[in-house]
Amino acid sequence: MSDSKGKMLWGGRFSGGSADVTKRISSSVHFDGRMYEQDIEGSKAHARMLGKMGVLKEDEVDAVVRGLDGILNDIGSGKFVFSEELEDVHMNIESELTRRIGDAGKRLHTARSRNDQVALDMRLYLRKEISAVRTLITGLMSIIVGLSEKNMDAVMPGYTHLQVAQPVRFSHHVLVYAWQLARDLERLSAAERACGSMPLGSGALAGVNYGNDREFLMKELGFDRVAENSMDAVSDRDFALDFLYFASVLGSHLSRFCEELVLWSSSEFGYIRLADGVTTGSSIMPQKRNPDVAELIRGKSGRLYGNLFSLLTIMKGLPLAYNRDMQEDKEPLFDSVDTVKICLEGMAEMLSGMEVNARRMKESVYRNYSTATDVADYLVGKGVPFRESHEIVGRIVAHCEEKGLDFFNLDAKTLRGFSGAFGDDAVGYFNPESSVERKVSAGGTSGSSVKGQAARLREIIKLYS
Amino acid sequence: MSDSKGKMLWGGRFSGGSADVTKRISSSVHFDGRMYEQDIEGSKAHARMLGKMGVLKEDEVDAVVRGLDGILNDIGSGKFVFSEELEDVHMNIESELTRRIGDAGKRLHTARSRNDQVALDMRLYLRKEISAVRTLITGLMSIIVGLSEKNMDAVMPGYTHLQVAQPVRFSHHVLVYAWQLARDLERLSAAERACGSMPLGSGALAGVNYGNDREFLMKELGFDRVAENSMDAVSDRDFALDFLYFASVLGSHLSRFCEELVLWSSSEFGYIRLADGVTTGSSIMPQKRNPDVAELIRGKSGRLYGNLFSLLTIMKGLPLAYNRDMQEDKEPLFDSVDTVKICLEGMAEMLSGMEVNARRMKESVYRNYSTATDVADYLVGKGVPFRESHEIVGRIVAHCEEKGLDFFNLDAKTLRGFSGAFGDDAVGYFNPESSVERKVSAGGTSGSSVKGQAARLREIIKLYS
Amino acid sequence: MSDSKGKMLWGGRFSGGSADVTKRISSSVHFDGRMYEQDIEGSKAHARMLGKMGVLKEDEVDAVVRGLDGILNDIGSGKFVFSEELEDVHMNIESELTRRIGDAGKRLHTARSRNDQVALDMRLYLRKEISAVRTLITGLMSIIVGLSEKNMDAVMPGYTHLQVAQPVRFSHHVLVYAWQLARDLERLSAAERACGSMPLGSGALAGVNYGNDREFLMKELGFDRVAENSMDAVSDRDFALDFLYFASVLGSHLSRFCEELVLWSSSEFGYIRLADGVTTGSSIMPQKRNPDVAELIRGKSGRLYGNLFSLLTIMKGLPLAYNRDMQEDKEPLFDSVDTVKICLEGMAEMLSGMEVNARRMKESVYRNYSTATDVADYLVGKGVPFRESHEIVGRIVAHCEEKGLDFFNLDAKTLRGFSGAFGDDAVGYFNPESSVERKVSAGGTSGSSVKGQAARLREIIKLYS
Amino acid sequence: MSDSKGKMLWGGRFSGGSADVTKRISSSVHFDGRMYEQDIEGSKAHARMLGKMGVLKEDEVDAVVRGLDGILNDIGSGKFVFSEELEDVHMNIESELTRRIGDAGKRLHTARSRNDQVALDMRLYLRKEISAVRTLITGLMSIIVGLSEKNMDAVMPGYTHLQVAQPVRFSHHVLVYAWQLARDLERLSAAERACGSMPLGSGALAGVNYGNDREFLMKELGFDRVAENSMDAVSDRDFALDFLYFASVLGSHLSRFCEELVLWSSSEFGYIRLADGVTTGSSIMPQKRNPDVAELIRGKSGRLYGNLFSLLTIMKGLPLAYNRDMQEDKEPLFDSVDTVKICLEGMAEMLSGMEVNARRMKESVYRNYSTATDVADYLVGKGVPFRESHEIVGRIVAHCEEKGLDFFNLDAKTLRGFSGAFGDDAVGYFNPESSVERKVSAGGTSGSSVKGQAARLREIIKLYS
Repeated sequence: MSDSKGKMLWGGRFSGGSADVTKRISSSVHFDGRMYEQDIEGSKAHARMLGKMGVLKEDEVDAVVRGLDGILNDIGSGKFVFSEELEDVHMNIESELTRRIGDAGKRLHTARSRNDQVALDMRLYLRKEISAVRTLITGLMSIIVGLSEKNMDAVMPGYTHLQVAQPVRFSHHVLVYAWQLARDLERLSAAERACGSMPLGSGALAGVNYGNDREFLMKELGFDRVAENSMDAVSDRDFALDFLYFASVLGSHLSRFCEELVLWSSSEFGYIRLADGVTTGSSIMPQKRNPDVAELIRGKSGRLYGNLFSLLTIMKGLPLAYNRDMQEDKEPLFDSVDTVKICLEGMAEMLSGMEVNARRMKESVYRNYSTATDVADYLVGKGVPFRESHEIVGRIVAHCEEKGLDFFNLDAKTLRGFSGAFGDDAVGYFNPESSVERKVSAGGTSGSSVKGQAARLREIIKLYS
Repeated sequence: MSDSKGKMLWGGRFSGGSADVTKRISSSVHFDGRMYEQDIEGSKAHARMLGKMGVLKEDEVDAVVRGLDGILNDIGSGKFVFSEELEDVHMNIESELTRRIGDAGKRLHTARSRNDQVALDMRLYLRKEISAVRTLITGLMSIIVGLSEKNMDAVMPGYTHLQVAQPVRFSHHVLVYAWQLARDLERLSAAERACGSMPLGSGALAGVNYGNDREFLMKELGFDRVAENSMDAVSDRDFALDFLYFASVLGSHLSRFCEELVLWSSSEFGYIRLADGVTTGSSIMPQKRNPDVAELIRGKSGRLYGNLFSLLTIMKGLPLAYNRDMQEDKEPLFDSVDTVKICLEGMAEMLSGMEVNARRMKESVYRNYSTATDVADYLVGKGVPFRESHEIVGRIVAHCEEKGLDFFNLDAKTLRGFSGAFGDDAVGYFNPESSVERKVSAGGTSGSSVKGQAARLREIIKLYS
Repeated sequence: MSDSKGKMLWGGRFSGGSADVTKRISSSVHFDGRMYEQDIEGSKAHARMLGKMGVLKEDEVDAVVRGLDGILNDIGSGKFVFSEELEDVHMNIESELTRRIGDAGKRLHTARSRNDQVALDMRLYLRKEISAVRTLITGLMSIIVGLSEKNMDAVMPGYTHLQVAQPVRFSHHVLVYAWQLARDLERLSAAERACGSMPLGSGALAGVNYGNDREFLMKELGFDRVAENSMDAVSDRDFALDFLYFASVLGSHLSRFCEELVLWSSSEFGYIRLADGVTTGSSIMPQKRNPDVAELIRGKSGRLYGNLFSLLTIMKGLPLAYNRDMQEDKEPLFDSVDTVKICLEGMAEMLSGMEVNARRMKESVYRNYSTATDVADYLVGKGVPFRESHEIVGRIVAHCEEKGLDFFNLDAKTLRGFSGAFGDDAVGYFNPESSVERKVSAGGTSGSSVKGQAARLREIIKLYS
Repeated sequence: MSDSKGKMLWGGRFSGGSADVTKRISSSVHFDGRMYEQDIEGSKAHARMLGKMGVLKEDEVDAVVRGLDGILNDIGSGKFVFSEELEDVHMNIESELTRRIGDAGKRLHTARSRNDQVALDMRLYLRKEISAVRTLITGLMSIIVGLSEKNMDAVMPGYTHLQVAQPVRFSHHVLVYAWQLARDLERLSAAERACGSMPLGSGALAGVNYGNDREFLMKELGFDRVAENSMDAVSDRDFALDFLYFASVLGSHLSRFCEELVLWSSSEFGYIRLADGVTTGSSIMPQKRNPDVAELIRGKSGRLYGNLFSLLTIMKGLPLAYNRDMQEDKEPLFDSVDTVKICLEGMAEMLSGMEVNARRMKESVYRNYSTATDVADYLVGKGVPFRESHEIVGRIVAHCEEKGLDFFNLDAKTLRGFSGAFGDDAVGYFNPESSVERKVSAGGTSGSSVKGQAARLREIIKLYS
């Protein structure tokens, strides 16, 4: 981004014009064109401010605003097509405006520069997209909470190391992903706050020779505050990094959820059935339901990470203030915006139509001595030292293995053969369904805890909606 | 991290013990040992809570607390040395406690697990370090503000594309880095809030069979809130990512500052002189002052980025809840903590002793037609159309180049030869020192703007101190 | 990638068809469409092999080949447009073929699968692009060698820590970048070898129920060898990683070169003048020549790094064999191919038109005691102990600083005032132009060394051309 | 790295000495100390060369070599301890040598510099480690080939999308990882070749004022060739990047294998049993065998990726020649060396003791219509059109589902009810064990193919051993 570029401006000195490769490597309108609404919104506010300052006359302001609105419509309806020759979205719109309304269009560039203009457009653009992303996240959270409530009492194995550890509610398990998303909302809001600083009026880097009413611009454009330092305003891309980071962590969360969806829809686990609409299959292998959407979302964590590291690399070691390297900020940012949105939509679609197979979960939890810890805790509660109680349970399990007995169905008499501490109430401690209820600590997998979580999540969703 | 590990616990079943390579790849005490204070702090709070719940008797609580305090002292004084055999910091301390006070030591592990214990320790550790880092950042900000105030009126070239663009105050330029740090403080606070969720009482993953008073633990340990979902509490590493991301952006900021320090201390720029204490040199080349510290800090952005990417990769696609992969979170986190601290100290040292060469800055700003834009703006102000005014200035510059005249020192008569619009006041518009004052827009490089910025930065520093 | 996808194939079981979001997230023809030539080339070879095996009859083979050639032409001329509905390039071409020639088109899919087909197309595509990239690299190397030869004897400061250290030839300095490119050629060839393994005939993952003549396919398609394991063939993306890595290191090299071009074209260094065609400027600041192309190429290292890390992340922890995540390999690969090509073209354009300012280089090398080490070496050669000789030179430098004398122009008498060891030949040792000639060690900056390097580089260029 | 650092050398000019933080941030002996053998090896060769050149006398060379050998022994036995004050390994050894043998020790530094010395040490170090890593890889490959041969005929489900697709041999499946390692060996050799360029004699950057016999050094130290350009030799870190990249891809391969080991050792899959020595468990949950080593190796891909990205970031945008940022190359390199070695050892341990549960594999492959494609192919072979044959098989599967019949056990009569094309031989086409044999294409999962692969892998192992 040069302060004043385009052949018409500095062509005098430069004899040969840009080399062909320069045009191809410099041109950005094929990607920055997507910010045309923000570019026009910013220009309209700037025109009004120039009017207030007396730089533009009342009727010039009107002409500019009407001209810009016309261009806005024509881009929207496809009537106006960007020219690669004019390099970027700003020059395309500015030239067209001048073509339509004459010199006032040129005067619009008073007291601003391409550098603060692009800084403005990106922030406006990102704020709009952040709002859309937030809606998708709260929507997905609602779906997860609904899924939890609908399957409140399904008990499944809780895994550590992908080994069955203790019984948990499916409803408890899936809420983890809602809590992750609640944290993602905080990171998203942090990115939004970072975008809240209004850069216009910073000029190329030093400020401008006019007393721009930046408070006016700030309010007109819906920002929180005015950028405090003109060189910072044009050289800062933290707000873009903040979004790319938000997107990366969201991507890591979704990759974990999708990994589980892929596992759960395997025939070996069989805990869920994804809907036809989000799977592909085979005409002759009816059991094959390839979880393509889950896999694609899992894989898309890669591009989200990659985009973050692209911009971190670009910014490394750049001296102040504006450097053209920074034009490379846009494509990763736009790609992460698009990717986050489609991933959230894909998750919503998958979870909405997903069926939970509580029977398969139950079979698995009953196959794996998942309540052995509960039984040991029972004995500790009866005064048996921790270590001894573990030994007793170990012997019971070994006994079941040897004799092919059902650990979850031993009677009190058998148990007392292992320890006199077993009372008649012991039998219940082997039961996975009871086990989850005994997790009475706050945040545990008991029914009341899960219901409380769901309620608090609904409040958070409301807060962000 | 297994729920119950160590040969003494599950050795019965496992005939051969761990393979040698398993011990080497699993052992973590050589790095997680640095969390011993937090491990002991957490255990003391847990003991008190078990006392409240009646699981431990009053005197047992006392014994545990005294035992742990003794171990704390002995680690601090080097009397107690960790054993690699016992794998991690938790086992080392737990075994030693049991050795010292007997069975009550073992009972301390009631109603918790290694999984929520390590989640607790890391958050406690990181909160402590975040506090230390914050102090270093505000300290560095103070130094920058001081540097700005001390050199308030030095005028230097403002660069875009590393080409001289417009004159700016050095004091304005360096404050960019203070504003960057102000944003880093926000990211640091976000990481701190992410650490504010108290995980203890989540057990291995499902919660525990005891009504742990988690509110008590939260207050006792200074947390903001209780982790809402036990599986989330043991599988979440967002708080560590948030710190690693904060550190990466800080690293990118410091790499930019250091790039400028390296440039400025080159003989070609010559804008600053770094103190002996932060440079290396040559006994025979007195002009050689290698800015090693600046280079090292610039390079350390690499490890800060790498650490973030490491943990993002580790978390990608991990199913719930705890997986041993997550042990790999600690080394990048600890390394980024250490790196951030030494970089901030290094910056403080460099900037404290740095001398600004205002004369060299002035020479450069006077060599480069840096006020050409101001002169054009002057003509616009006199009613000359934008385009025409640019042409006029272009001709003046060309004239100076040809005749070897000093652009900054043309008299009014010469100027009027180019355009009748030049008044007697025009001469001042060529002056870089006046140029910076004419940047009257908020946030520009005028003296009042820079002073205002310094005042607001001092408030921010106070706020965070 | 499913084994058999598209509504027509497995639609029977799936009632609702794909969800809209599924179509959007799954569709790849907007990017994999660029492999249409390779897809057709592979299909033609496969058809001929099926003919050899008797699966297709002679006239069927002819029909397939003619049909595919027609489609190839129609895509090339824009007559045939891909449909997003048909998802990917393979389905688009296969459907169109069947539409044109009937059932034989369908039979073409015998003894292969989408999984080995895409693995084939990517390798064919990448081999073609690697060849184009190689030509660009050798072309750029030639330009650098030419630049070196044209400016053989310009002496400039050699920097360490961006501090002037010793005089070097400019011609020696720029050849560093040619040597870097020579190493990049090796990495490129490694990527090419990785692409040399012919995957077709691996089927979905297990091989096929036909004795495919894979040697025939290998020769027909110009591969080096047949992929040895069918599951490996469809799940391996090492060849893509190898290219992305090559591109990243190339990007790091070019970022270093561009950093220097940006430095050198600053007014402070002033060592080079980039041509109008690769810079942007200002109509009123004639000295401003923004090195946009250099900055953009420097910044593009970010996307090259990001693309590598995207694919590394995608592949992390993926079980065998094909997973849909792997569709995400294409966009980073294509983007790196495009980026590498335009960066190499941009470098060639910049270096072709670049003017070297030997005078500014000379001024700088003469300003900085750059030969102090040579003088000390001279004394050592005369038998003065290393340490003492350093002290002597230090005193001479201090003397020049104090008296404002020209270090490079001291007479023998003055020198003997500092040490009797100085002979009449000493004077020459202060001279930067002589200094570079005294670097007689192989690979040093002497003229004969640089000429030898240039000759060897020309051989390497020839070897790869 | 400065050309001549340490207080004794340039202390004269620098009044205050280094700041405390400078010492801490600059010191590298705590990590570069591990290259002491290479530093001494390089110095001995350099001494001999100086002897040949007449710079050192015969007896001085002997004194240097004896002195260095003494230091080598004393470091090895722990008698000589590095001092942080002396900053790096080079200064530590050089000072000690001078202390022991006097001035000849100092003379050893003639005709070289710290910059080419560290470039030499790193290459020597890495070449030694590459050799060790190669042995570990070929060792692991042997274990995999042995595992394959031992379980040659176990049939398991082949997965795509983690859905059962077609039967494959377990022996075929695991060989994928041997083929990946074979490619890793090529990348390792590429890194080795990159290390094969001898940098000594490049001096600080420009070459040296002596006709160093670099061919002699090359042969003495076992290098392939002499570095061609002195500035390139001290500023190039491609060889380190090449190793870090090799390590990253190896890490991605191992992460995939470990993902499968984790899946396969889950109770849901149950395909393998890892030995006690590489798992952790629970005293009371005998079925719990946490695959900690597999998880840790999977997680360590994160640090391997992170290390690569660190160095890529460090090198981005660095001007020539040596910059102190490059000191940051060592820790990621050393960490990746250590990580790769322990991961390979861990894999070897895991695979050596792993038991394959062929029964569970068989159950799974028989549960999932895995041969439906084979049956359709059978019908195609009998002349039934592709599409129709798929419909027929779809109906058979639906029939089995409805009636609860065993797909793999239908009789010829039942089959003929679906299509007259089924002959008596059809029954065999349902059989998974026969299916794998029918994959007659080269590289498929047939027994002869797998045996052939094993033989070729053994040759590759031999080639690299």
